[in-house]
Amino acid sequence: MDSRNLIRFLFFTFIIALLLLLTLTTIPLTNTGEPPDCAINSRWCTSKTRFFQPTIKQPPKPTTRIHTTDVPHHPLDPLTLTELDKVRSTLLENQLFLHSNTYALHSVVLEEPDKSFVLTWKPGDPLPARKASVIARVKSKIHVLTVDLGTGEVSPRDVGEHSGYPTMTMEDMTSLTWAPLGDAEFNRTIMARGVDLKDVSCLPISIGWFVKWANWEFHLKPDPRAGIVISRARVKDPNTGEMRNVMYKGFTSELFVPYMDPTDAWYFKTYMDAGEYGFGLQAMPLDPLNDCPRNAYYMDGVFAAGDGKPYVRENMVCVYESYAGDIGWRHSESPITGMEIREVRPKVTLVVRMAASVANYDYIVDWEFQTDGLIRVKVGLSGILMVKGTSYDNMNQVNEPENIYGTLISENVIGVIHDHYITFHLDMDVDGPDNSFVKVNLKRETTQPEESPRLSYLKAVRNVAKTEKDAQVKLKLYDPSEYHIVNPSKKTRVGNPVGYKLVPGGTAASLLDLDDPPQKRGAFTNNQIWVTPYNKSEEWAGGLFAYQSQGDDTLAVWSQRDRAIENKDIVMWYTLGFHHVPCQEDYPIMPTVSSSFDLKPVNFYESNPILNIPPHFEKDLPVCNAVAATA
Amino acid sequence: MDSRNLIRFLFFTFIIALLLLLTLTTIPLTNTGEPPDCAINSRWCTSKTRFFQPTIKQPPKPTTRIHTTDVPHHPLDPLTLTELDKVRSTLLENQLFLHSNTYALHSVVLEEPDKSFVLTWKPGDPLPARKASVIARVKSKIHVLTVDLGTGEVSPRDVGEHSGYPTMTMEDMTSLTWAPLGDAEFNRTIMARGVDLKDVSCLPISIGWFVKWANWEFHLKPDPRAGIVISRARVKDPNTGEMRNVMYKGFTSELFVPYMDPTDAWYFKTYMDAGEYGFGLQAMPLDPLNDCPRNAYYMDGVFAAGDGKPYVRENMVCVYESYAGDIGWRHSESPITGMEIREVRPKVTLVVRMAASVANYDYIVDWEFQTDGLIRVKVGLSGILMVKGTSYDNMNQVNEPENIYGTLISENVIGVIHDHYITFHLDMDVDGPDNSFVKVNLKRETTQPEESPRLSYLKAVRNVAKTEKDAQVKLKLYDPSEYHIVNPSKKTRVGNPVGYKLVPGGTAASLLDLDDPPQKRGAFTNNQIWVTPYNKSEEWAGGLFAYQSQGDDTLAVWSQRDRAIENKDIVMWYTLGFHHVPCQEDYPIMPTVSSSFDLKPVNFYESNPILNIPPHFEKDLPVCNAVAATA
Repeated sequence: MDSRNLIRFLFFTFIIALLLLLTLTTIPLTNTGEPPDCAINSRWCTSKTRFFQPTIKQPPKPTTRIHTTDVPHHPLDPLTLTELDKVRSTLLENQLFLHSNTYALHSVVLEEPDKSFVLTWKPGDPLPARKASVIARVKSKIHVLTVDLGTGEVSPRDVGEHSGYPTMTMEDMTSLTWAPLGDAEFNRTIMARGVDLKDVSCLPISIGWFVKWANWEFHLKPDPRAGIVISRARVKDPNTGEMRNVMYKGFTSELFVPYMDPTDAWYFKTYMDAGEYGFGLQAMPLDPLNDCPRNAYYMDGVFAAGDGKPYVRENMVCVYESYAGDIGWRHSESPITGMEIREVRPKVTLVVRMAASVANYDYIVDWEFQTDGLIRVKVGLSGILMVKGTSYDNMNQVNEPENIYGTLISENVIGVIHDHYITFHLDMDVDGPDNSFVKVNLKRETTQPEESPRLSYLKAVRNVAKTEKDAQVKLKLYDPSEYHIVNPSKKTRVGNPVGYKLVPGGTAASLLDLDDPPQKRGAFTNNQIWVTPYNKSEEWAGGLFAYQSQGDDTLAVWSQRDRAIENKDIVMWYTLGFHHVPCQEDYPIMPTVSSSFDLKPVNFYESNPILNIPPHFEKDLPVCNAVAATA
Repeated sequence: MDSRNLIRFLFFTFIIALLLLLTLTTIPLTNTGEPPDCAINSRWCTSKTRFFQPTIKQPPKPTTRIHTTDVPHHPLDPLTLTELDKVRSTLLENQLFLHSNTYALHSVVLEEPDKSFVLTWKPGDPLPARKASVIARVKSKIHVLTVDLGTGEVSPRDVGEHSGYPTMTMEDMTSLTWAPLGDAEFNRTIMARGVDLKDVSCLPISIGWFVKWANWEFHLKPDPRAGIVISRARVKDPNTGEMRNVMYKGFTSELFVPYMDPTDAWYFKTYMDAGEYGFGLQAMPLDPLNDCPRNAYYMDGVFAAGDGKPYVRENMVCVYESYAGDIGWRHSESPITGMEIREVRPKVTLVVRMAASVANYDYIVDWEFQTDGLIRVKVGLSGILMVKGTSYDNMNQVNEPENIYGTLISENVIGVIHDHYITFHLDMDVDGPDNSFVKVNLKRETTQPEESPRLSYLKAVRNVAKTEKDAQVKLKLYDPSEYHIVNPSKKTRVGNPVGYKLVPGGTAASLLDLDDPPQKRGAFTNNQIWVTPYNKSEEWAGGLFAYQSQGDDTLAVWSQRDRAIENKDIVMWYTLGFHHVPCQEDYPIMPTVSSSFDLKPVNFYESNPILNIPPHFEKDLPVCNAVAATA
């Protein structure tokens, strides 16, 4: 595997060099300072009642946030800059690290307190002991450690024996990026392409409790591997005023991006972007006004570099209120009733966004919270295709168009066919941790002779999944189901179990051979839906050490144990997929392609929870003028 | 069938009566006067170059549009109020109508000139003879007539012999709505429910050429049966400046809404909302600020009532520029390259919207035009469920929950399971009328031993549909294809055929027995995609006379002829589907549920057509203040 790895790194470097050719200009960043005042930004403000203003009164003034004084306020708050410093100094004094100049910290993140603790913690309660979870490489050996920030104790954690390596550090990537430049032949090749190589540098990256928006409350933190982590998502019941649990934790667990070219320089291109590169590490500062609208609030990530030193990734996440002109609900009376009735409510949502640039590709991940209790998770793909050189400059030179592994997207450039799979860890806790997974199957029922002029109709048949294998789902258009996570102990007024359903949108399934090495590593894409019992160590669908792993620690392996999942603390996994046959429009930078799935209340509320929100009137809306008019 | 129809009408009336209970207050309408000035509203303005302003300078002032002076400007402009009057007076003097007091005009719309004429017509050219297409009932007999508005000639049109009746007139619906009130027993039942029946009246309903937005140009008209008709959609090529043909005509051809309850009072509920009720006839005035944002421009519909008299449906369609905070394209350099490169362009789109209230349900239909050439057609469902009374007030009283045909959504109220299918007629003319339909199948290819460490990969295999049956498509997640409409005579610079692809989103397939009477009528939903050769008379997927038809004039019947479709003028049909298992949140008015499909350029452009649009800078954006601050 060593020579293949070298080839891989060479190509990685080469692609980066090519990317330099395609880049344009740099836009100066402006940071915006104040968190959104819910009283200004939302009419459904949970703290005060004020009319909605779709745009803020004054553009936020650019400021730079100082993180040296950050302190954690919530058990799930990520490690602060000061805490990251302390982790590093503690480790450097530890016997394991003493006299080692060659250590690298592959991951330094908060070791989250037990779920049972977090679920009972309330603001004002003391924080639990702050601990860091560290993945370190010392003298070529991997150690998974817990560092107690209070006592300074460093203790090893047994994660079992698995193939694979931890997420690359930014230093790994940088040094690997530079390594080929020591090779004169490589340099000659680059120069022959007229590429002026610029400096290549690296950066590694935490913060936050978001205040509350409308009827939602959740904890949001940047994470070096997952990107954005949403925890403790709770929504207000309009009848009781109670904040009700929906999801304990949701995040991008792994990505799988197999390219469809089996030839020498391409067969290994089957990336797992979270576990190999760090989805959060690759999230670059967002560009205000373009990545997010003017009313956005920005959050920084504070991460640790390979040597343990903390870095700040500015404007890594944005949060904004969005009004696209969509309708929350409406009803007009049909003209035949003759009644002039027209009740309509506009839809305003809260969007949490990050954009990760995993080398050439840009992934835009949105967590969208709606006032009707729906959570929409949307993934957008943009950026630069991974392309392949060819001697062809026109398709009329190609005898078998199927055999070029893609599309000739410009002269001498093939956009290679590939898939994108994004697997989400969705630890649903609907009104509490113990939930069941129910497939509500829509099944054709045939009527009996003389029963009805109808021959057939659809019946909804509820199947409660007892064990993990019952919950391995391949979606089928002609055998459709709804997928509910219900709390079997809690019923609505009229006796339906309270629940949320997973609503897949447009998606794609992996068609690779199950025994193909990439598919074994990406086996978490063998189904679109999985449900596992909660297990603190089962967070990363491709395995804790995804890099060069052989698939022995994936979601597919865990699920094969077929554990009981009925009325238990369960985790749902959903994979959003894209087949991508490139076209010329994707070149040189592709217009964003998006898909999404929803987590939607189903008999969670007693009735439409947004029936009572007020409509817009002219007086509620701001008056806008061109800048020129006000100058 | 007569007694069934009576039952049907009784129920229809009863439901309307129930709706009265649920309605709230009336909001006064404000009309906005001026069409959007592209120079103000778009930075990609085709006529001038100005910076984009996401909100207009001043809120449009409410005006009432006068339609008596309307004149047609384009061959596809709908009949004006004056023309509708002339059709009526011409018919009343005609031998067929003389001395008949019982005639009814089921449809009076523009008889569109031949496609070949429209395709060569340019602004400034004289208009063709204006003709009306009339479906009239005289002494219980249906006549399909052409009225020449210039010569006054009335000529019958042979549409063949088919089962079924034309779309109900508003008068049909109104009189039917009143008929049951002559029945004392019926009235007693209503009064026993405490319902105060209000007057029931009816309205029937055209206009326009939309000027142009960004790189798009299209003709938009309200239609009594289809709702919105988009014609002659053309998009500018950024390289040549040429306006290129994309779609000759696109509209909602038919809806099919089968309810899944085979019992006596419910089995027949299998609505075809366009052909039976008139999707446009049921489109009520939009509510400014709530149905559409403040920057919306509104259009009226001018339709003919059953007696031929023209009526105006105010604010039936809105058109607005939308910015939801989404990203058109982006690329950031990965941190490992060390380059501070971050190029992002916001996505701004144009939305054309109508909302039809077919009795209880509200359908929101959006045609969204993107600057990257993509057309997204989105259907939203809101309004009031069709519900069924029950003696149950809690699920604990129900022994077999599967057998109540739905969900107990409130005490004594069952939301009955049903499907919604919306079938679109998409007459694609990609760079000209003669196109081909190509299935680009993604097929697993197994490698030969020793060929590669990979066992498998996906290959894109192009299959050009020769005849209609090749183009009858059931979507399959595990046998995926892209669906291209290409112009085989036109290639890109590097030799790819220019095309557009249909990109389905989340959808549903009808699972009813193919021999079930409702499915025979709704047989146009037997596949998700169909392609037929262009035929002026094949516009309505459920048949010209959908009402009580027996399925002898549907898309499925036409397609069965298996005509040649390669390199011909072809029409693509796509059906968007929803299974709806109601939940308590849907009651009493359901939060909007949406799904969509895209028509997307695929090697239509030489490269990303929006690469050169400029980013937002602070100076480009308007300054907004709360109304209070400016008062």
